[in-house]
Amino acid sequence: MVISSQKFLDENKIDVYDRVRIDSNGRKFEGVVMPRHSFSKEDILVLKLDNGYNIGITVEDAEVEMLSRGESPKKGKTEQKRDEKLPGITILGTGGTIASHVDYSTGAVHPAKTAEEIIESSEGIRNIANVNAEAILSVASEDMGPAEWTLIAERIAEIHNERKEGVVVAHGTDTMAYTASALAFQLENISHPVILTGSQRSSDRPSTDAHDNLEGSAKAALSDVGEVCVVMHSETSDNGSAIWRGTRVRKGHTSARTAFSTPNEESLGIISEKIDWKQQYKAVGNETTVRSGFEENVALIWIHPAITLEDWESITDGKEGVIVAGTGLGHVGKRMIEGVLKTAGKIPVAMTSQCLAGGINMNVYSNGRKLVKGNVIDTGDMLPETALVKMMWLLKHEKDKVREMMAEDMVGEMGGRRFLE
Amino acid sequence: MVISSQKFLDENKIDVYDRVRIDSNGRKFEGVVMPRHSFSKEDILVLKLDNGYNIGITVEDAEVEMLSRGESPKKGKTEQKRDEKLPGITILGTGGTIASHVDYSTGAVHPAKTAEEIIESSEGIRNIANVNAEAILSVASEDMGPAEWTLIAERIAEIHNERKEGVVVAHGTDTMAYTASALAFQLENISHPVILTGSQRSSDRPSTDAHDNLEGSAKAALSDVGEVCVVMHSETSDNGSAIWRGTRVRKGHTSARTAFSTPNEESLGIISEKIDWKQQYKAVGNETTVRSGFEENVALIWIHPAITLEDWESITDGKEGVIVAGTGLGHVGKRMIEGVLKTAGKIPVAMTSQCLAGGINMNVYSNGRKLVKGNVIDTGDMLPETALVKMMWLLKHEKDKVREMMAEDMVGEMGGRRFLE
Repeated sequence: MVISSQKFLDENKIDVYDRVRIDSNGRKFEGVVMPRHSFSKEDILVLKLDNGYNIGITVEDAEVEMLSRGESPKKGKTEQKRDEKLPGITILGTGGTIASHVDYSTGAVHPAKTAEEIIESSEGIRNIANVNAEAILSVASEDMGPAEWTLIAERIAEIHNERKEGVVVAHGTDTMAYTASALAFQLENISHPVILTGSQRSSDRPSTDAHDNLEGSAKAALSDVGEVCVVMHSETSDNGSAIWRGTRVRKGHTSARTAFSTPNEESLGIISEKIDWKQQYKAVGNETTVRSGFEENVALIWIHPAITLEDWESITDGKEGVIVAGTGLGHVGKRMIEGVLKTAGKIPVAMTSQCLAGGINMNVYSNGRKLVKGNVIDTGDMLPETALVKMMWLLKHEKDKVREMMAEDMVGEMGGRRFLE
Repeated sequence: MVISSQKFLDENKIDVYDRVRIDSNGRKFEGVVMPRHSFSKEDILVLKLDNGYNIGITVEDAEVEMLSRGESPKKGKTEQKRDEKLPGITILGTGGTIASHVDYSTGAVHPAKTAEEIIESSEGIRNIANVNAEAILSVASEDMGPAEWTLIAERIAEIHNERKEGVVVAHGTDTMAYTASALAFQLENISHPVILTGSQRSSDRPSTDAHDNLEGSAKAALSDVGEVCVVMHSETSDNGSAIWRGTRVRKGHTSARTAFSTPNEESLGIISEKIDWKQQYKAVGNETTVRSGFEENVALIWIHPAITLEDWESITDGKEGVIVAGTGLGHVGKRMIEGVLKTAGKIPVAMTSQCLAGGINMNVYSNGRKLVKGNVIDTGDMLPETALVKMMWLLKHEKDKVREMMAEDMVGEMGGRRFLE
């Protein structure tokens, strides 16, 4: 029988943040009890050890001894600094370099685990806003997926509707653009800003961009921008941070602080003392609505000179939808066309370009024209990454309209301009 | 009954390049009769108008009036213009937009088929060099593969060794960078330049870049550059063409003329009247050696939040080598690591980054460190496309040294500088 960790704590009169010693299956651990996440396994209790690591311990047949009462470190901190003249924002920590630190014993960077660690790196924000910090996840960027996207969107909707304040999501940079798109499709209407930010250099390094990016994000979270956005270091070095449309941005450098840009448009604005807006954007509305969740069974295929029809078949077999990152204007070799058309007859297949900038146009060359006739979906100038997330969302929520909605703009993911003069 | 445009011309005693007035279905056009392409619709006659555009006119029920006799600009040209004081170059036509024309009956662009058609679009070159033109292939960019790469490399080696002159390869732009890499690895030593070029707009459109790019290529083909290079419109508009290292360049826009760039370095030089070199390059050597051919059974995998371990297994099953386009510094989610390590224990698996700019560094984060320990190959700042072609070449020619050679620079495909300070 599985016993829930909450029940285990209740029976033993232990609260979150209490310091305890646990004996589980003959192994002993000492540390502080951490809050349970809704997606943790029921029987797992998370303990923060003195070396800074969190571990999950099964409570089945475990024994616990109270060492000292704890106090939520979250409470005190925010109270102490709260200034009633300032507006509020919430920072949701999810992991990544922005909330990470270097482990000097190994040289590796570890994600931070607690809300305090997020607040710690956001000193500059406190002159701008009262910060509510929550570490809802501690996940490396490359481990973020549909389950995490869902959790984050739902928590943002709760915060918008209950606290009536903007939300900054501190996130790893690798897949930040995927998550930004995922939030944009789930949160089509928002009453307050949703800003993703991160850092390319961890906050304990002199070259860190964590502070600038967090401060810029706070300013953006206090604006009236009603589209999900990313705030990171602007493209031109040492020019503050920039704000980009979340569905149009990508990480284009592995390590530079100026890694982010929108290949098909300029940034929405540059943030220094205040925000210098450069583009029109949708403003916030009256309420935040959430339609969360994704179909996960999809494929993203990068076309290249060695890919074969057999490769296509094995990658797409059993999938519910396919995004193709074709060459140039949206091409696949003629050896592949029969396979692509066959798949497109069964499930939605959408074309994007591995060029990343510019729009596709399958009507120019003969191979492309065959794809159009076979109902391969034209996604305009949508990024492959965004198209993937959009299809995953549509397959879950608009199953009957995937083809039609993939080809139309929903939340700013497609530019109005076509690129072939 | 469809009347062929050739028969229509014959009956009216009109020749190609004659200036005529045509009345077709009540609309009047005046211009020069253009040569018919073998794949045009039979009843369509192509007329070059005075505004520079070509249009297709149906000859059914049309009436034509001769205005003046024309002279084929083609005939005699190579003879007429051959100037013994000028050096020679060879242009190898392989297909693509640079040697294509618009089919005015459908609006589609078709590849050109003949050597003369290539020469026709290279008017400006004749003041610089005596041009030998050969159309060795007529293949759309997306249909180029290892067989074509082999054929082109072998023909270049013959021309270098027999005619002792530089070679310009006119190529479709979509996969030009893959082919440039393929030639670079096959032709490690060259006695004369090898320059790939193409155009984003076909040569019968006023905005064409075909002439500029061909002229720039000719200048590069007459230089002493001993690395395989790409010459295309420079990144800054209307600033002539630029020359890039073939293993470092990629097409980054679907339709703009300024589509090409090297994400991890600047161009080798800018070409206007002459070449303004900006970087060191390897100069040509004494002879051209060719080691042609590729292992085709490889995979290129783009990591994304929805890819699963099962996807990995089905894509890599039975392959001889795998290139991973990981996130950020070279990451895959922890759900994939076991699978990646298993594959890397059997065949070479090399990591690149989907950021495209910057180098990978798998030692920073814990997921990456597991990959390094499992012998996933670090490719530095090599582009995923280049890494794919390199692995295909190594598997064929250096089977025992694939892992070691993938991690070292061979022909300029890796930058010396690592990007994480």
